[in-house]
Amino acid sequence: MPSSPIPLPAIGLIGFGAFGRLVATHLAPLFSLRVHDPFVPDSAIAAAGVAPCSLVEAAACPVVILAAPVSTFAALVRDIAPHLQPGTLVLDVGSVKVRPAQIMRAGLPPDIDVVATHPLFGPQSARSGLRGLKIAVCPVRGDRARQVGAFLRRALGLTVILTTPEAHDREAAAVQGLTHLIAKVLVAMEPLPTRMTTRSFDLVMQAVGMVRHDAPEVYHAIERENPYAAEVRRRFFDLAAQMNDELGEIEVAGVEG
Amino acid sequence: MPSSPIPLPAIGLIGFGAFGRLVATHLAPLFSLRVHDPFVPDSAIAAAGVAPCSLVEAAACPVVILAAPVSTFAALVRDIAPHLQPGTLVLDVGSVKVRPAQIMRAGLPPDIDVVATHPLFGPQSARSGLRGLKIAVCPVRGDRARQVGAFLRRALGLTVILTTPEAHDREAAAVQGLTHLIAKVLVAMEPLPTRMTTRSFDLVMQAVGMVRHDAPEVYHAIERENPYAAEVRRRFFDLAAQMNDELGEIEVAGVEG
Repeated sequence: MPSSPIPLPAIGLIGFGAFGRLVATHLAPLFSLRVHDPFVPDSAIAAAGVAPCSLVEAAACPVVILAAPVSTFAALVRDIAPHLQPGTLVLDVGSVKVRPAQIMRAGLPPDIDVVATHPLFGPQSARSGLRGLKIAVCPVRGDRARQVGAFLRRALGLTVILTTPEAHDREAAAVQGLTHLIAKVLVAMEPLPTRMTTRSFDLVMQAVGMVRHDAPEVYHAIERENPYAAEVRRRFFDLAAQMNDELGEIEVAGVEG
Repeated sequence: MPSSPIPLPAIGLIGFGAFGRLVATHLAPLFSLRVHDPFVPDSAIAAAGVAPCSLVEAAACPVVILAAPVSTFAALVRDIAPHLQPGTLVLDVGSVKVRPAQIMRAGLPPDIDVVATHPLFGPQSARSGLRGLKIAVCPVRGDRARQVGAFLRRALGLTVILTTPEAHDREAAAVQGLTHLIAKVLVAMEPLPTRMTTRSFDLVMQAVGMVRHDAPEVYHAIERENPYAAEVRRRFFDLAAQMNDELGEIEVAGVEG
């Protein structure tokens, strides 16, 4: 095949889990992707239609996307730092933003631009395309967050929410913290009715279905790495216990018919 | 206007709250409805396009639908019993079935047929029509439950689930008990994020929106009058506390990066 007259810009993608694969699907047509994942064989990466490479090769690209669990983030940043070119743009795509932004700010050389992102969707929601799905974009270092936002909006059709890591984690603690906690409890209560259901129960179970197969790392990042998640859980439990007490008291006080 | 050549069969509807009104909307074109509600002025009933009447007149119809809160049910059954004609079919439409079925079986004369029903939807879900919505139908006395089911299916397009009061309440304790409890806690946590949301969170909040304006009687019936609801709540809280403990322990045991 003749090579493309204008070579596509190169992006290094580090991490080829569920979310890394989703990133690859949508960026492969627009960029020359180099993918590295120490836990995925090169043959499996190649089978997905993208080019496997070493960590050093991925880090040498002008744009590097980190799609690794938050728990491995500090080690990954330390490992790639020496191999980045000056002016490289580094992005992450994790479910929390305060700690990864801190890690990237502290661990990446000052001549590296950093933009933290959180696509507010997973492979499930993205099944019928990205158009209209939301992504949070946080400038961390340098002035390329707007440029990134414009690309995500124009090329991928995403709805871009420009925010800060703190504001993001505060909202995500409620949005994702509550959804995943409720989902986890409901899954543990299964089997739940499937026939005699209401529309509102069906909606709740549809929400459960969208997050139940998320990797355990996603749940742990959302509930443990988000600095506001424990407080949201505490409020949820306090209020739930209060509702339960109110129902119990009335029940005891009431006269049985 | 000329009167209809064949008079429409008469139905007495007792209770003109949110659900009574919904029943009236869908049965008015097919029956001659007589509506009684001690707490709604006759003028308001007439303004809704149906004929107000006394409790005695409503009870004298060949079919009587009780759309009153479960808490007032025993008194209502006692009040109508002397005015029912032999062979009358009495139906209810409440969110729980064990206690109302007991009350109707015990309080209505033996020559009265009784069918307990629970439309698994409210005015919100029924906004765009009844077709495909679910209704639970429980035979309590007599053999007219199938006839009722056939009518609901053919004339109103409902999906009919033939069941028993016990099986109904067991499933509804999970379906409605959990949905309403979760909704009540989430409403108490408001304001919750509306902009930076995921699809699964949006679905949960859509479910909350469908039940948040339900009358307090509905919530109390679901959580207090359902004999299985307290047990479902207990399991939910136990599992939630367990999840929370697990997250807390890991957090304490983990080394901060």
